[in-house]
Amino acid sequence: MPLSEPRFDTVIVRFGGEIGIKADWTRKLYERRLITNIKAVLKKHTISYAEFVRKFGRLYIKTAQAEETAEKLGRVFGVSSLSPALETTSNLNDILNLSIRLAGSRFKKGKSFAVRCHRVGKHPYTSQDVCRQVGHNILTQLPQLNLRVDLTHPEQTLHVEVREDRAYVFTDTIKGAGGLPLGTQPKIVCLLRDDTSSAVACWMTMKRGCPAILVHFENGMLTNRLGVERIKDTAQRLMEWSTGFPRTLYVMQLGRNFQRLSQKHSPELSSLLCKRSMLYVAQGIAKMKNAEGIVTGDSLGKQASQTLHAFRIQDEAAKDYPIYRPLLGLDAPDIEEIAQKIGFEEATFHGVKSKVDVKEAQIPTIKLEIIKQVEKEMNIERIVEDALKSLKILKVQVQPNQRTLSYS
Amino acid sequence: MPLSEPRFDTVIVRFGGEIGIKADWTRKLYERRLITNIKAVLKKHTISYAEFVRKFGRLYIKTAQAEETAEKLGRVFGVSSLSPALETTSNLNDILNLSIRLAGSRFKKGKSFAVRCHRVGKHPYTSQDVCRQVGHNILTQLPQLNLRVDLTHPEQTLHVEVREDRAYVFTDTIKGAGGLPLGTQPKIVCLLRDDTSSAVACWMTMKRGCPAILVHFENGMLTNRLGVERIKDTAQRLMEWSTGFPRTLYVMQLGRNFQRLSQKHSPELSSLLCKRSMLYVAQGIAKMKNAEGIVTGDSLGKQASQTLHAFRIQDEAAKDYPIYRPLLGLDAPDIEEIAQKIGFEEATFHGVKSKVDVKEAQIPTIKLEIIKQVEKEMNIERIVEDALKSLKILKVQVQPNQRTLSYS
Repeated sequence: MPLSEPRFDTVIVRFGGEIGIKADWTRKLYERRLITNIKAVLKKHTISYAEFVRKFGRLYIKTAQAEETAEKLGRVFGVSSLSPALETTSNLNDILNLSIRLAGSRFKKGKSFAVRCHRVGKHPYTSQDVCRQVGHNILTQLPQLNLRVDLTHPEQTLHVEVREDRAYVFTDTIKGAGGLPLGTQPKIVCLLRDDTSSAVACWMTMKRGCPAILVHFENGMLTNRLGVERIKDTAQRLMEWSTGFPRTLYVMQLGRNFQRLSQKHSPELSSLLCKRSMLYVAQGIAKMKNAEGIVTGDSLGKQASQTLHAFRIQDEAAKDYPIYRPLLGLDAPDIEEIAQKIGFEEATFHGVKSKVDVKEAQIPTIKLEIIKQVEKEMNIERIVEDALKSLKILKVQVQPNQRTLSYS
Repeated sequence: MPLSEPRFDTVIVRFGGEIGIKADWTRKLYERRLITNIKAVLKKHTISYAEFVRKFGRLYIKTAQAEETAEKLGRVFGVSSLSPALETTSNLNDILNLSIRLAGSRFKKGKSFAVRCHRVGKHPYTSQDVCRQVGHNILTQLPQLNLRVDLTHPEQTLHVEVREDRAYVFTDTIKGAGGLPLGTQPKIVCLLRDDTSSAVACWMTMKRGCPAILVHFENGMLTNRLGVERIKDTAQRLMEWSTGFPRTLYVMQLGRNFQRLSQKHSPELSSLLCKRSMLYVAQGIAKMKNAEGIVTGDSLGKQASQTLHAFRIQDEAAKDYPIYRPLLGLDAPDIEEIAQKIGFEEATFHGVKSKVDVKEAQIPTIKLEIIKQVEKEMNIERIVEDALKSLKILKVQVQPNQRTLSYS
């Protein structure tokens, strides 16, 4: 008896995790934001749905594009996991029929399996009954699959969720993006360089709820200028994680005046001048845009300009805003791993080297008073003003369906 | 022919990774620091060694306690991996004999294997020759093991490293702690609370080279007081990663005066007053101890007091020092994972709840000027002075061999 391949008609979206343990009032706020963000993704990808139900601490989205929906929602922060599922009634026969069809089309030959059941509501059967009967039927009705039961370490699992008068059957659970819904924290200015680190730092801050204001300096002395196109590509990748939020990239220059004046000094001093100037400007943008902090991709000890001494001198420039360095305690391979997870694996910008030779040991010898004196002589305020005037606003387009997401 | 079980006599210590790519002068500095730290661990655990050779970008430590040494050095930052090994001459027969003995005692029955060889120097054979002959001899001389060769995905591997006139044979490579050698960055003040997060944050900063000055507030309003003993235990665990550096824990109090005055206000305001006061005091300690920054275990959005708004108000208190939050962008499960990796898995202090009910949404309504006004009325300077006077210095003992380390 050949069974027709069942087509998933529902996506179960779980967001328990950190949202679940928040105080009642805060949790509701977070959930509301999550739902808004999810609906923005569905709209963007023109995914139509017949139902959108928030119940039992989960979302049940009824749609003919269930697999596509699950994939797209894998990029919504706050979602802990997703399952494309088949919906039916809570009638045991319906559950049994659907389970056989799903197992028949999804289970691999010769492997072990288990059936798991969760139940909410009153039914004439227990969860145990469901597991037993579904398992029994799979074994007897699908002998050609040559399956065997393993309840402790199954190679494949069929899940049945009975929710009052409905039931859902599924085999796969996709890991969600984790974190907290974007927009539950205030905005933050992210200094985007032509490297993986700054993009990863930005992503990690977004993951904890902060919408990012992306800022790039076109001719920062410490960044190789490889064209705004590359930065636009990075911005685009990041914005795939922030559907529903502005798709703006701010590009600016420190100006020739700065280049000329700062290069009179040692590489160490001029590198600090450059970083401080960027932070002065970032602070200006934070004020303009009502942001609450500045994010950089610095990791401690990674480069000569990324030492505690250098950070302290840098931070003094942006006194009105905290500077956040989410990569501070991560090793280079950790950062690489996150980059790959978020889809930067094809990125070609690894190993961009600084054009200047900054010696780590020299940094602590530079006194803050000296820098402040030099900045005064350079008329840094004017340079910052000019930089803010040079600001170009680029609208970054995100192509729907451009990239596909894969989770392990 | 029964072969006697060979006893490892050498540990190969690798530290390539991030140290390897540093500029020459900096790399030497980092390597020197790493060697000092390694020798401190050997001394602490009274491990005697016949040779300590830094060559070919690695360390070769000749010791009868090779396995113990490898385990202990797994807690030295900057070490990327370690292998307990057997040393012999570069004579091919010696290599073949030793390889058979090692495979005979270490290889598991019925599994696949491969032989890998790296060679530096001039020898009458190629690396290929070594692999081929060792592989052949293992197959023919150890038929009872029922092994088969798999060069792409072997289940077990025998490594031969030929270094000029010596050769090393080993099967296992233990992952090191990673990061950069402790002491390559300046000192940092770590605010240790009775929770996993602050310990993980401290560990991550140490991992990037910063010796930690551990500070605990005995009666911080936001920390449950569960006795200094628990904090001492946490400090002890952290110090297992910083052998050779001071084993000091600073314990202090904000004083009754602070408690009485701050509790007059809303939970939100008094939580901010408490955090700011701790940062004022931490700043005082940073000055005293010549540290370059302050580390906290904050993760964005994790608690109501860990929002960008709250951070900004907090950071304003310690204007002279950057505040570092290495856990900023990490989710709760990420932090838990690191905690387990570093040996906090038995810790019982998960889920310590704040005693006060701070509402996230209330934080942004509190203006900095109000706080400053309240602080003035409380005579915060006096409170900070008193706290610094209350400072108790505890020497934390680390028991050698107390805990064992396991890496996956």
